[in-house]
Amino acid sequence: MRIPKHLGVIPDGNRRWAENNNMSKQKGYDNGLDPGLAVFKLCEKVGIEELTFYGFTSDNTKRPKIQRLAFTKACIDAVELLSKENADLLVIGNTDSPMFPKKLFPYTKERKRFGKGGTKVNFLVNYDWKWDISNISIAQMRSRNPIELLKSNDISRVDLIIRWGGRRRLSGFLPLQAVYSDFYIVEDYWPDFHPNHFYSALDWYNTQDITLGG
Amino acid sequence: MRIPKHLGVIPDGNRRWAENNNMSKQKGYDNGLDPGLAVFKLCEKVGIEELTFYGFTSDNTKRPKIQRLAFTKACIDAVELLSKENADLLVIGNTDSPMFPKKLFPYTKERKRFGKGGTKVNFLVNYDWKWDISNISIAQMRSRNPIELLKSNDISRVDLIIRWGGRRRLSGFLPLQAVYSDFYIVEDYWPDFHPNHFYSALDWYNTQDITLGG
Repeated sequence: MRIPKHLGVIPDGNRRWAENNNMSKQKGYDNGLDPGLAVFKLCEKVGIEELTFYGFTSDNTKRPKIQRLAFTKACIDAVELLSKENADLLVIGNTDSPMFPKKLFPYTKERKRFGKGGTKVNFLVNYDWKWDISNISIAQMRSRNPIELLKSNDISRVDLIIRWGGRRRLSGFLPLQAVYSDFYIVEDYWPDFHPNHFYSALDWYNTQDITLGG
Repeated sequence: MRIPKHLGVIPDGNRRWAENNNMSKQKGYDNGLDPGLAVFKLCEKVGIEELTFYGFTSDNTKRPKIQRLAFTKACIDAVELLSKENADLLVIGNTDSPMFPKKLFPYTKERKRFGKGGTKVNFLVNYDWKWDISNISIAQMRSRNPIELLKSNDISRVDLIIRWGGRRRLSGFLPLQAVYSDFYIVEDYWPDFHPNHFYSALDWYNTQDITLGG
């Protein structure tokens, strides 16, 4: 079976899940932590080398403050959970903005090994696709591959993106690394994660031809 | 009903259609001309203001020459067909490459009005996402919106992308204009186009929330 080298995860539907469970919207994010750890462990198990989580974006920070605080806390908690695993961990996002949580600064400088290392995990926090390409002018002269010019240049081309929560869009997720990605949608909300979602996505990916645009 | 302002069309599956119909692969492209004109007329009818066709890419030109000649001819024919309609037409792609068909040069300098004008039609020919962003360094100082920095800066944000042929990927289609696009897949191959595909996509789009990442 052909396994993607790099899996992108868009963990959407936390707020809709909370409302469906008679909770206020911001209560949904905490229930996304276990799914995140579960996906990480499944990647370890099947041998996916790189995993990128879409934490939150600059666009998201325009939401009500109570939600912003909740999803920011969930991202901090998720990164701290992952740092107890065997992982090579990097947090990427606009650290110049006050929306970036200070607690995650130590994870942003360079990829850090935790435990015995292993899966490369990228966690996008206060990510902004415009910010990501904003550096391109300076670096351009040294390189021909546009991905190398990005602020997220330590994140490689994404093979498969799984989005939970039924929306069929990228919502600004790594536009240049995603140009050739296969895109799998799970209708269930992220807090209702089930390993079958993951395995179904891999089964589907295995049936796709890989042309890289050719 | 909420109608997208800008529709992107990825007309995939011509070669698979030809093989299914016991023709050699390159014979499929001609059968994509009628569908293209049909989509154009449907856009006119429902009031979609801008329509972008994914003609062929630099990646595609690595295919066997007999196929390359066939899809290049189909793109020339399609543009010439559209120039007989009421449309504001622009062809965008890397004209510096020998893969760009000379016959389409006159359509590349600026958007041209045909007939009474009307729908903005963008036709991507020998398009290359790397080429598209390669100019960014020079223009950057004058602008904050990255789309304005692209070679395709006359193409606006895409609201809805319909891809025929079952693949669930962008294949390098306008990565920055597509960051917030909703993405609708038609399993049928492009030469088997039916107006129901178009209307089903619009019905689905009408049920999506539009957050632009927020």
